[in-house]
Amino acid sequence: MEFSSKLLENAVNEMSQLPGIGKRTALRLVLHLLKQPQEQTGKLAAALTKMRENINFCANCHNISDTALCEICANPKRDGQLVCVVEDIRDVMAIENTSQFRGHYHVLGGKISPMDGIGPGDLAITSLVEKVKTGNISELIFALSSTMEGDTTNFYIYKQIEPFNITTTTIARGISVGDELEYADEVTLGRSILHRIPFETSLKSL
Amino acid sequence: MEFSSKLLENAVNEMSQLPGIGKRTALRLVLHLLKQPQEQTGKLAAALTKMRENINFCANCHNISDTALCEICANPKRDGQLVCVVEDIRDVMAIENTSQFRGHYHVLGGKISPMDGIGPGDLAITSLVEKVKTGNISELIFALSSTMEGDTTNFYIYKQIEPFNITTTTIARGISVGDELEYADEVTLGRSILHRIPFETSLKSL
Ligand SMILES: [Zn+2]
Ligand SMILES: [Zn+2]
Repeated sequence: MEFSSKLLENAVNEMSQLPGIGKRTALRLVLHLLKQPQEQTGKLAAALTKMRENINFCANCHNISDTALCEICANPKRDGQLVCVVEDIRDVMAIENTSQFRGHYHVLGGKISPMDGIGPGDLAITSLVEKVKTGNISELIFALSSTMEGDTTNFYIYKQIEPFNITTTTIARGISVGDELEYADEVTLGRSILHRIPFETSLKSL
Repeated sequence: MEFSSKLLENAVNEMSQLPGIGKRTALRLVLHLLKQPQEQTGKLAAALTKMRENINFCANCHNISDTALCEICANPKRDGQLVCVVEDIRDVMAIENTSQFRGHYHVLGGKISPMDGIGPGDLAITSLVEKVKTGNISELIFALSSTMEGDTTNFYIYKQIEPFNITTTTIARGISVGDELEYADEVTLGRSILHRIPFETSLKSL
């Protein structure tokens, strides 16, 4: 791609560093900014810089937070004995959205993936094990994605905390509510049969 | 979407102002920046701000340029009597890429689109008509996209310059080089038959 302006080229190059944004898309986005008032670019640049420079992670759960402890960890009504282990803050947002969980989270910051060069040391695993060691946790809920990497990470953590004898659970996998059985993938359908629950229990969630 | 941080929310909101970037994508991009060194966000923000504040448009053709006249208009080897009318600088880049055009461009900045509230006054049409009036242009090549808006814009300009009696042409539409006829859309195939060219002429472009 040959540019008629260095300023433009530079902006497109920086924009296309973002994941999933190729040069063509970057050019489209940058040309859009040129058609908008200068103020819009200023606000975008300021928001990104301010965020990157001042972002803070909750000292307890590693969730993104503007305060030392995030709102969830600081809320006395939440049960800190119940800890849900997730990959990233998007999972926290998704689970919070359901209003079904009243415990704390522990954000690992990813999952073990040797292919991508991510080992246990790159994730917030030590701080999780430390938390378990203190004895203030009764149950750890694994809510990682059900991929090989997710399973590996679950198992690695499980092995570390096994000596401390706390309850470990994993979120239920099954057919999505409202989905037709015939369109479900075999693995999910198989798991949903294996991990069937008492009918009375299902009535309670209605 | 509920955010655990105002800084994060702000960054996501600004990012999702960009066309085609929804809240989810914006969150993904912003979280990526948080995982990269702070320097990357700084460079992105600086590149965008510098570009937006200092961008310049060629005084002759309205192409983006860091100098008063763009490289094309400033090049004495290019033929200023031949002017190719395009919507936007991406079209200039695409045509320059072919190395088949040695004239100048005129970048309109869009096309007439009442649906989007874009009238002739929002485009660089007056300056094009002025250029034609000076009598230094021998041929105007319309290279707008062949949509209703493109055709409307072509016709509007054509009517304005008709009195000045210069040659007006439009780029050829037809089957892409290398494409199978059977997969071509009917309209394109129809036009390519209607606008057939002497076989000898086709030999010259081999
Ligand atoms: Zn927290
Ligand atoms: Zn120019």
